[in-house]
Amino acid sequence: MKQTVIEAALGKTGADIIFKNAKIVDVFSGKIINGDVAVKDGIIAGLGVYNGENEVNLKGKYLIPGLIDSHMHIESTMLKPSQYARLIAARGVTTLIADPHEIANVCGAEGIRFMVSDARKVPVDFRFMLPSCVPATPFEPSGAKLDAKALTELKNDGCFQGLAEMMNAYGVVNCDPEVLEKLELFGLIDGHAPGYTGRELCAYAASGVRTDHECSTAEEMTERIALGMYVCIREGSLAKNCAVLSKGLDKRNMSRVTFCTDDRNIHDIVSDGSITNCIRIAIKQGVSPIDAVTIATRNAAECYRLTDRGAIAPGYIADLAVCDSLEELDFCAVYKNGVLISDGKKALFDVPEDDIPPQLVNTVKLSKLSADALYEPFDPKKPVIEVIRDSLITGFYHADSDDGLNLCAVIERHGKSGSIGKCRIKGIGLKNGAIAQSIGHDSHNITVLGASADDMAAAVNALGHDGGIAVVRDGKLIAHMPLPIAGIISEKPYEEVEKSHRAVLSALGELEYNRDFEPLMLLSFLSLPVIPELKLTSGGLFDVRSMQFVKQD
Amino acid sequence: MKQTVIEAALGKTGADIIFKNAKIVDVFSGKIINGDVAVKDGIIAGLGVYNGENEVNLKGKYLIPGLIDSHMHIESTMLKPSQYARLIAARGVTTLIADPHEIANVCGAEGIRFMVSDARKVPVDFRFMLPSCVPATPFEPSGAKLDAKALTELKNDGCFQGLAEMMNAYGVVNCDPEVLEKLELFGLIDGHAPGYTGRELCAYAASGVRTDHECSTAEEMTERIALGMYVCIREGSLAKNCAVLSKGLDKRNMSRVTFCTDDRNIHDIVSDGSITNCIRIAIKQGVSPIDAVTIATRNAAECYRLTDRGAIAPGYIADLAVCDSLEELDFCAVYKNGVLISDGKKALFDVPEDDIPPQLVNTVKLSKLSADALYEPFDPKKPVIEVIRDSLITGFYHADSDDGLNLCAVIERHGKSGSIGKCRIKGIGLKNGAIAQSIGHDSHNITVLGASADDMAAAVNALGHDGGIAVVRDGKLIAHMPLPIAGIISEKPYEEVEKSHRAVLSALGELEYNRDFEPLMLLSFLSLPVIPELKLTSGGLFDVRSMQFVKQD
Repeated sequence: MKQTVIEAALGKTGADIIFKNAKIVDVFSGKIINGDVAVKDGIIAGLGVYNGENEVNLKGKYLIPGLIDSHMHIESTMLKPSQYARLIAARGVTTLIADPHEIANVCGAEGIRFMVSDARKVPVDFRFMLPSCVPATPFEPSGAKLDAKALTELKNDGCFQGLAEMMNAYGVVNCDPEVLEKLELFGLIDGHAPGYTGRELCAYAASGVRTDHECSTAEEMTERIALGMYVCIREGSLAKNCAVLSKGLDKRNMSRVTFCTDDRNIHDIVSDGSITNCIRIAIKQGVSPIDAVTIATRNAAECYRLTDRGAIAPGYIADLAVCDSLEELDFCAVYKNGVLISDGKKALFDVPEDDIPPQLVNTVKLSKLSADALYEPFDPKKPVIEVIRDSLITGFYHADSDDGLNLCAVIERHGKSGSIGKCRIKGIGLKNGAIAQSIGHDSHNITVLGASADDMAAAVNALGHDGGIAVVRDGKLIAHMPLPIAGIISEKPYEEVEKSHRAVLSALGELEYNRDFEPLMLLSFLSLPVIPELKLTSGGLFDVRSMQFVKQD
Repeated sequence: MKQTVIEAALGKTGADIIFKNAKIVDVFSGKIINGDVAVKDGIIAGLGVYNGENEVNLKGKYLIPGLIDSHMHIESTMLKPSQYARLIAARGVTTLIADPHEIANVCGAEGIRFMVSDARKVPVDFRFMLPSCVPATPFEPSGAKLDAKALTELKNDGCFQGLAEMMNAYGVVNCDPEVLEKLELFGLIDGHAPGYTGRELCAYAASGVRTDHECSTAEEMTERIALGMYVCIREGSLAKNCAVLSKGLDKRNMSRVTFCTDDRNIHDIVSDGSITNCIRIAIKQGVSPIDAVTIATRNAAECYRLTDRGAIAPGYIADLAVCDSLEELDFCAVYKNGVLISDGKKALFDVPEDDIPPQLVNTVKLSKLSADALYEPFDPKKPVIEVIRDSLITGFYHADSDDGLNLCAVIERHGKSGSIGKCRIKGIGLKNGAIAQSIGHDSHNITVLGASADDMAAAVNALGHDGGIAVVRDGKLIAHMPLPIAGIISEKPYEEVEKSHRAVLSALGELEYNRDFEPLMLLSFLSLPVIPELKLTSGGLFDVRSMQFVKQD
């Protein structure tokens, strides 16, 4: 292998492909190199002046390293990995650090293995982190539980880059023995520590956690960088931190940040891109284009110890993207290991259609519900969840009446208790109808929001055993998107998923609510008891600050 | 382990040591943090405000991470690793990337294992790279040969960080199968490519080599950084690149350089420090003190994939040094894994005296030589080696007469051929006496320089079976420093070695020669046929440009 690349570098034997007249983005020096790039056997052989049989004349276009999404959950797009790869290849992403903890919460090890296996079918490099928190906390009834023993067994599969986000920061700083045992499994550990600061953040970092993607202020970012952590700057569909955090970057600390999408829906990726979107936002905030590309490539590779990528240099793998403008990132070609995988519009590879493993279907185990089961009278003593724009964080609100509040319920759906948590929610201002979905991080119980309990029951009952998303207005089902794989992922090509998703968004457009919010992503995170401050699980309202259920008088 | 550190970070249980009122050098943000640092079980637990039973009040002194020497040969100090550790601990170095290829050339695997084993006795972290080029080229008669098979066996010892400098760059770019086989052994490969540029440098980098410490111009450094290599900026005793290369650094490319000493003698380390010396020179050239410290710590750790060190942050090992000034680096305390190992003047740990393995002694296998054997008449057709100040590189010189030239010889001493290479040398201008030594990179044959063949023979014969360094004037031995371990290392404490070395330097002071040169280091590299342009081996004059012996008419 090395011999052919060495000989191509010398120009002795022909390269497989030569990019002529490129503006090569040099992420090490922060400069542009004008020249040619020779690629052999999927490896960059040389930079300089090269000629050969297979030349691609870039005529002064930019050549950048393939982008790296440093933290994300494929499940948030409702796509299988192979379909997600088709979507993302056209957007310049060639490597992803994926945490399959959503499917793991429903289907356990079988779910994780499905993701790994499906991802291997396509020429995009998925690096999986092993989910550390299934369920995220002991307070959620998930479909599966992965204890330290189960993780050790999975680790032996040998296909994990490290330990995925340790969301149980409370368990870390309180030295929960099970949590500490998990932390010993890998040297590379992702973090999740919203709101942590000072000694608690030190304790969290001292445990070996080396990243955090939950920063929402420049101060939080600065503190984490100083404490030796990488900050994965996130621009998801709900949590949007890129603009604020970019303002806190300088030439020195920017080497310790990466970009990530975390949870970004298919609509936003199709409309605005994924990591490309992060780069564009950072540039708008004053980060130089070359620096922004560096953050999205070299930095992520360094953070995740991928020493073979993230730059255009000899010996590095030939993951490359071509564009006219670094500000626009208008790709006309994307290469993975030296092979063209996209023309910037669509993926140029096929995905074999395979059967879904039977363990992953019919995961919504729920009998028909009545409106009464979902309703509870307003109680002014009970706190109300207040949602906040562009944030996963929610607030405590105390209301005197239920004017402008909505009903919300979370229903256990893994065939265990079937218990139902109920509360009122402020901010969305839904005036009519209901929305139900079997997507609810991380345990993926049913979350339903409504202006009336009747519509809520109709929406929940429409989900069936496949789960998915249902929108009801005036008692009528106006959209239904089934998600047969674990109740969170579609088996279909991404184009069809996007069409179904658009139909759901269109149905939502028929409901009246505060347009500052995207209700689907909002509902997805309403039950996640590791994001401050007040969440709803099927066990009831949960106070994330004290990590306990809200006491009922 | 993690639990105690986490609890110390929280202030719940006492830290082992608390550094109060420190100016903490934050190598990630490039700033100074004023505060306390808590250490538990050798790990940094927290930064902030801490109190405890064992406080060290730094009263505003600087706290920096322990320095890392990113490439060096312990043998160049003539010290055993354990004694070198005593010397270097007081100078703030807590981790070294060491290549034991000098002793390997004399004693093979036994020599390497001795170095690893001796290094383990002391609280300084030696990370050994596995010598890739023993001998450096097929053109030298060394005491041992390590082929790919031998390296594979050694690799299985499991104590090597990567493959040490691949000096056979010629073999790499010409795809020598044995060289390529060696390159497959490790993902981390050190380089050595003086003078390489363009396609040949690309080929070398494409082979997987990721560092080079042989840059002597900013242009060479810039090219290597752009090609994805780290540049280890060297300040040895003979090769001094730090001032020139520092001028080529900026805020962006400086993340891809480290500091190293490569070959630095005991005298220079005692007088001017080791990595501290690099930092001081860089600062004088305009690199900010915090950036210079960053290069010497975090960068080296990143380059060598040592993810647990190189910074003062929770979870990092507590390798720390205390000083009043970042410009002076006047250490008053050095800690390794949280334990005080030096007061800045001397090491505070003992080194057990052990017997030297019998395979490593009596390695100079040479019968008594006559002056005639070392002499040859001047031949104007034969090129002359011209030495260059502050450089390992030598030039071709053509002389009409031998006025001002010196005699030089290299004698095979491993009990093989006993062959003798002879030449004239220009630049040193030795007027009287002779200097002989069994140190001669990398094969460590005898190198002898003299104004007369009689004195040369006397110096060589004085070396005996122990080898070492001998200085003769007017037929009289005026200094002799035995080096019983492989003919290149002393068995004695560093204080005694330094005293002997000073005696040798003092004897050299009685000879007349051009004081621009330090003859010992110069002789050490005169026979190394991987440094351009003209060298002398026991087989005769060697043209490094064409990698062949100079043809005799």
